[in-house]
Amino acid sequence: MTALRSLTLGDVAREHRRSRPDLLAVVDGDIRYNHRTLDERTTRLANALAARGINRGDRIIWYGQNSAHLLELIVAGSKIGAVTVPLNWREHVAALTTAVREAEPRLVVWQQEEIGESVAKVRADIGDGPLWLRHDAPEYEEFLLSGSLDDTEEPFGGEDAVLAIYVANPQDGPNAALLSHLAVLIECLAIGRVNEMSDETVFLNSGPMFHLGTLVSTLATFHHGGTNVFVRRVEPELLCQVIEAEQCNRAFLTPPTVAAMREVVASRPFDLGSLWPGLNPDEWHSVTPSLNPTSGRSGSYGQSEVMGLATFGGLGRVPLSPFGRPLPTVSLRVFDPNGRECEIGEVGELVFRGPTVTTGFLNRPDLDLSRQPDGWHHTGDLGVREEDGSVRFVAPMGRLIKSASENIHPVEVERCLQQHEAIADVCVIGCPDVHWGQVVKALVVLESGAGIGLDELADFARARIASYKKPRLLQIVDSVPRLANGQLDRAAADELGGGGGYPGEHSGSARHVAKRSS
Amino acid sequence: MTALRSLTLGDVAREHRRSRPDLLAVVDGDIRYNHRTLDERTTRLANALAARGINRGDRIIWYGQNSAHLLELIVAGSKIGAVTVPLNWREHVAALTTAVREAEPRLVVWQQEEIGESVAKVRADIGDGPLWLRHDAPEYEEFLLSGSLDDTEEPFGGEDAVLAIYVANPQDGPNAALLSHLAVLIECLAIGRVNEMSDETVFLNSGPMFHLGTLVSTLATFHHGGTNVFVRRVEPELLCQVIEAEQCNRAFLTPPTVAAMREVVASRPFDLGSLWPGLNPDEWHSVTPSLNPTSGRSGSYGQSEVMGLATFGGLGRVPLSPFGRPLPTVSLRVFDPNGRECEIGEVGELVFRGPTVTTGFLNRPDLDLSRQPDGWHHTGDLGVREEDGSVRFVAPMGRLIKSASENIHPVEVERCLQQHEAIADVCVIGCPDVHWGQVVKALVVLESGAGIGLDELADFARARIASYKKPRLLQIVDSVPRLANGQLDRAAADELGGGGGYPGEHSGSARHVAKRSS
Repeated sequence: MTALRSLTLGDVAREHRRSRPDLLAVVDGDIRYNHRTLDERTTRLANALAARGINRGDRIIWYGQNSAHLLELIVAGSKIGAVTVPLNWREHVAALTTAVREAEPRLVVWQQEEIGESVAKVRADIGDGPLWLRHDAPEYEEFLLSGSLDDTEEPFGGEDAVLAIYVANPQDGPNAALLSHLAVLIECLAIGRVNEMSDETVFLNSGPMFHLGTLVSTLATFHHGGTNVFVRRVEPELLCQVIEAEQCNRAFLTPPTVAAMREVVASRPFDLGSLWPGLNPDEWHSVTPSLNPTSGRSGSYGQSEVMGLATFGGLGRVPLSPFGRPLPTVSLRVFDPNGRECEIGEVGELVFRGPTVTTGFLNRPDLDLSRQPDGWHHTGDLGVREEDGSVRFVAPMGRLIKSASENIHPVEVERCLQQHEAIADVCVIGCPDVHWGQVVKALVVLESGAGIGLDELADFARARIASYKKPRLLQIVDSVPRLANGQLDRAAADELGGGGGYPGEHSGSARHVAKRSS
Repeated sequence: MTALRSLTLGDVAREHRRSRPDLLAVVDGDIRYNHRTLDERTTRLANALAARGINRGDRIIWYGQNSAHLLELIVAGSKIGAVTVPLNWREHVAALTTAVREAEPRLVVWQQEEIGESVAKVRADIGDGPLWLRHDAPEYEEFLLSGSLDDTEEPFGGEDAVLAIYVANPQDGPNAALLSHLAVLIECLAIGRVNEMSDETVFLNSGPMFHLGTLVSTLATFHHGGTNVFVRRVEPELLCQVIEAEQCNRAFLTPPTVAAMREVVASRPFDLGSLWPGLNPDEWHSVTPSLNPTSGRSGSYGQSEVMGLATFGGLGRVPLSPFGRPLPTVSLRVFDPNGRECEIGEVGELVFRGPTVTTGFLNRPDLDLSRQPDGWHHTGDLGVREEDGSVRFVAPMGRLIKSASENIHPVEVERCLQQHEAIADVCVIGCPDVHWGQVVKALVVLESGAGIGLDELADFARARIASYKKPRLLQIVDSVPRLANGQLDRAAADELGGGGGYPGEHSGSARHVAKRSS
């Protein structure tokens, strides 16, 4: 990417400094900067980082909660080509230690308040290879102000990474998706359309910024010249106070948070009328009546590896699937396990192509190969095209059963069998078989008073999905094993029903898959 | 650009075929295709082109009026990496002949109806080096259907050109700005926000598609999955009929067209209530009252060389300048003639950086150098930053006066002097001078009964602009020479006032500048 045609977050800061210098860029407790100051501070910070030898491609870890300093760090990093890696501070110390070690950062920006104890443990393990800079202490301002105001405007951009976001994938160990300058630019433009952004947008960072669900809106608000308001944690009364005080019109609010805010508002009135209902209009209408009308449709699908939001149900023709259709930033296909495109209605893996797709995983070339083997980014999620072309997310792929040469997703078979009126619950496993390699077995919990035989079960399945996916074994059980979070406990199910012999289980060559995580 | 991260118009067609196959993509008289058919036809056309040896980087000229076939051609071209060049069919035959010759096309798609005579003249000169394909005859369908339905999905994208648009620049001879796949993608996303597009958009192509003013909306409508409705020419009654029949909600309508439609509607009622007022709400309200509210602000600046629209006044904080602020797709600066950034309020050249900037001029490396000498694209237009950061377009740069080593824009001095109460009209020229090279001379038309001397004039200027820009010569005239279109006739003014010796006039090294042309 030549300087002539690059547009990084650093360039955006430089432009805002000229286009809207006096407009408020960040609010974080007592911190209030306009765009002129944000550009100056990020130039200083970039120069301070460069003076410590931090250069293009170097990683900078953010080990703190939500803060204006994180936005500052990302923009400063983009001015020197560095990659900012926000850690999930809620993770276990052991996982965080591994993540920090594998990221090989030059700098860790950390926070004492609330999480200082865990930081200390990680630091004790990692040592002082990287520079450690505390952001909630005077040393942060000293560090920043040590950088000069001279903006050299070195060109970065294109497919160079500017962010690395850890994706939730316990199977694969810590892995962070590298996201490019171009991916950020394009996603910010798309989010600007979805959330109707402009420089009048005032976004409350009320979700964790280590997830793109919030961070993409932070960046899009910045990109469109609006105001980012930060809170360290999601506390319902504080959120109400801040929305009222700053007249926030966008926020990241999950249904439980909205419910908690509803209780706050019931006991003490706040004027929250500035808020646009965004992606949760129905929830939000119960908190404040003075909202703009929206479609009331808010379904979406995404994952960090494709820069967050990738399908959306709230714009355009009403889709059959609430997940909607792909954003105009991506190509989406549904692939069978052989990489052939599925028919309409046939469940397969969701795969993406486009400029928002991750350029790879931080220090994980194995994942680059396994997740992007064929010119498509494999999400590790199952989905299906509806008749009208909209896309339904079905479930994380989890595991595959291999019967003869056929690949069978247990979740697809389960989804089918659950429709049978005699079946209350079901878990599908693969059992080792001399002839077939594995055969499909259904562990079935019957509805009270109901009964079903294998033939009927197989017929039911064959009428709805490919014949080779039908159960060849049936075991009636009192309950199927589930984890504390309600998900099927497939290991326990295997133990209960004699499952095993899954592809790759012995050879180690199975493609690991990631859970949806945006 | 790898296949994994590319997103071309061809990819967009492939995605729509899956996401919204049955949605109407194009309407053009009797032609009505959905997105499935558009993808199939563009694959066939791409294969038919490839079979004739048309490959990546080859030029295809469109020598016709507005048509669904032009959109088809652009999308098909993007599937094989070819560059579509829409000609301005209104131009003189001589200019068109030069343009066709210099573009060195492999194919000219042409039209018999209404313009067949001029095509024949151009073809007589050019000969049959390129293939000539008539699009308003059965041979077009035969050609298209000769291509196979097999979509090989060869990867193109990134900074490869997909379009070349002729810019209006009589000084420089024919020159077409090359616009990349990435520029198209990013501009389409930005236009989607500005015009609130989705797959419910129904855009009436009611401006000439050889200008980006219309063509960018064509492409953005397509990109967002909407419906493009084509009319061959801008005929007010036809526009009313088509809007009513197709329920168009977007259109490209200039004030004269709106005025003409108003007359049509006065004599025969049409239901035009589907239309969104777009960029001309005030004009439009007078035609139909049933419109959505908009900001009523619609100023903008752009040029073909930056993919059309580049600043916009209709979103976000109300700007001091009606031209608004840069879109979130570009960096904009105002440069003095030495390439230094101007202060607020100081007039200079508008320069741009970003992914929508032209990758160069078709077969004109001289222009690449002169228009993009320093990592910025020079528009050849004068502008100024207002106090609030918004940007005002002032005038095409036209010519420079060189006095000592200083560069002086006559238009800036004129803009200043026009504020003097004694001055009714003014034209500023440069006069040859042994000592200074040139000196600034003002040709002044006085207000009735008023008078002014050189000292007062110079003092007035010095108080407002740089001292070296003040007039050193004054000539009172009855009128300043103007062209038929009302613009200053600078050649006649030089003759009247003894002007000459402009930089480059003898050496031939002056940087030629292009007029605003989007």
